[in-house]
Amino acid sequence: MSMDIDYANVQPGAAPPQPKELSGDELTARYILQLADDAMVYSQRLGEWIANAPQIEEDMALANVALDLLGQVRPLYSRVGELDGTGRTEDDIAYFRGEREYYNVHLVEQECGDFADEMARMLWFSAYQLELYRALMQSSDATLAGVASKAVKEVEYHRDHATQWVLRLGDGTHASHERMQAALERTKGFIPEVFADDPVSVNAAASGVGVLPSSLREAATAYVASVVERATLTMPDAEPSWRSRGGREAMHSTPMGYLLAEMQHIARSHPGATW
Amino acid sequence: MSMDIDYANVQPGAAPPQPKELSGDELTARYILQLADDAMVYSQRLGEWIANAPQIEEDMALANVALDLLGQVRPLYSRVGELDGTGRTEDDIAYFRGEREYYNVHLVEQECGDFADEMARMLWFSAYQLELYRALMQSSDATLAGVASKAVKEVEYHRDHATQWVLRLGDGTHASHERMQAALERTKGFIPEVFADDPVSVNAAASGVGVLPSSLREAATAYVASVVERATLTMPDAEPSWRSRGGREAMHSTPMGYLLAEMQHIARSHPGATW
Repeated sequence: MSMDIDYANVQPGAAPPQPKELSGDELTARYILQLADDAMVYSQRLGEWIANAPQIEEDMALANVALDLLGQVRPLYSRVGELDGTGRTEDDIAYFRGEREYYNVHLVEQECGDFADEMARMLWFSAYQLELYRALMQSSDATLAGVASKAVKEVEYHRDHATQWVLRLGDGTHASHERMQAALERTKGFIPEVFADDPVSVNAAASGVGVLPSSLREAATAYVASVVERATLTMPDAEPSWRSRGGREAMHSTPMGYLLAEMQHIARSHPGATW
Repeated sequence: MSMDIDYANVQPGAAPPQPKELSGDELTARYILQLADDAMVYSQRLGEWIANAPQIEEDMALANVALDLLGQVRPLYSRVGELDGTGRTEDDIAYFRGEREYYNVHLVEQECGDFADEMARMLWFSAYQLELYRALMQSSDATLAGVASKAVKEVEYHRDHATQWVLRLGDGTHASHERMQAALERTKGFIPEVFADDPVSVNAAASGVGVLPSSLREAATAYVASVVERATLTMPDAEPSWRSRGGREAMHSTPMGYLLAEMQHIARSHPGATW
């Protein structure tokens, strides 16, 4: 029995570099990576709905949302590779990082539940992401500002799509109302993490590259609350006793490893292949 | 867009070498690989029950069955690497083969269903494997004969374990009886493939290394039928209209790719690592 793994670099559970160990451009890269990882992982989850949504048009709609998110990720990952000096390509960054090198929030990595769970997640995530991209149109990083400007129109559509479903299910039958309410309750514990001010975002906001997550909370929450009210549903406790945390430090919940295994298996089976 | 994959060697869907393209030792290696792949893949599925079985003792029991199967696989994979001239280690063979290089039957790769499904699968698989290993104690390949001699005692226990559960569920409550019967019905389409005489097994039987799968069918089926009768259940149609096929040609069903992704992800993330 020998131990040939270089644990400093590749141990699945190894701690990632802390923000305080990063320099200016590396910190900017980490900020962009956080946002891109949210979109990457949520895109992967949404792809699971293809052939599983309640109607065939919805398969297509969710696939389109997933592709929009992937389209946002690609230039952002390329920008990360430029900024952090590693020269990694978008594929390197997507397929050859381990679980302790992914910085997404826990909301997006959770397994797909029922369709109401997905619409609760999409409503919250798109409400957050729309405020985020609106703010980032003024980013001092030209790539990030460019992606944000293009993505706001896409994310408006995502938010509208989730809105229509939450209204239809909440203000539908007794059964659909109950299930939509239950989905909002199951989702609530993952929301505070989305709006928490982590050190990397604080730095990015100070340097003009980014925005404080907490500054987006009021507008995003007001939007979700307006939809919930029109849907005859009840807004869940905004300060739930159980809350996810750790995503921005690359600490993840159980589903994350399985998601990466599925997402990365083909690329890791053929290292160096291009297409 | 370039195509740098060497499709002759690594394309996920590439056809494996046909039996007629293999020489004597390579054919023997393929035969042993088929049997070992059944045990490897079933071991992986059984491992999923840990922390999910209906009682904690059952978690341990299924884990022990999985470990017995893994214990059979290891010397067999090493023997395959010797015989086929590739010098691959057991880890190479387990972790660095693609879906079109695995030769197990479809029965063992199916997703875990409910507990009754698992007991139906285990009853059939262990009844088959016990007859197989009894016959292989006379194999002209010393490694295979040695593994078989040791494994018969283990597999007798597996068969007895599944038997006790099928009796308990079949001859239990109305609900447990119905669910056990439904499990037998869901399993039946995967059984003919287990006893089908593929070219590799025919060659191995002729050379004294192996045994014809069809020659094991009567004894294994008689055992299952005796348990089913004692459990007050009904034996499903032995010639169902839908039957799985293709496993011995490395053609697999949808769950197989996901199983390999999960099973191989850590090893492929750290190629060359040992432990």
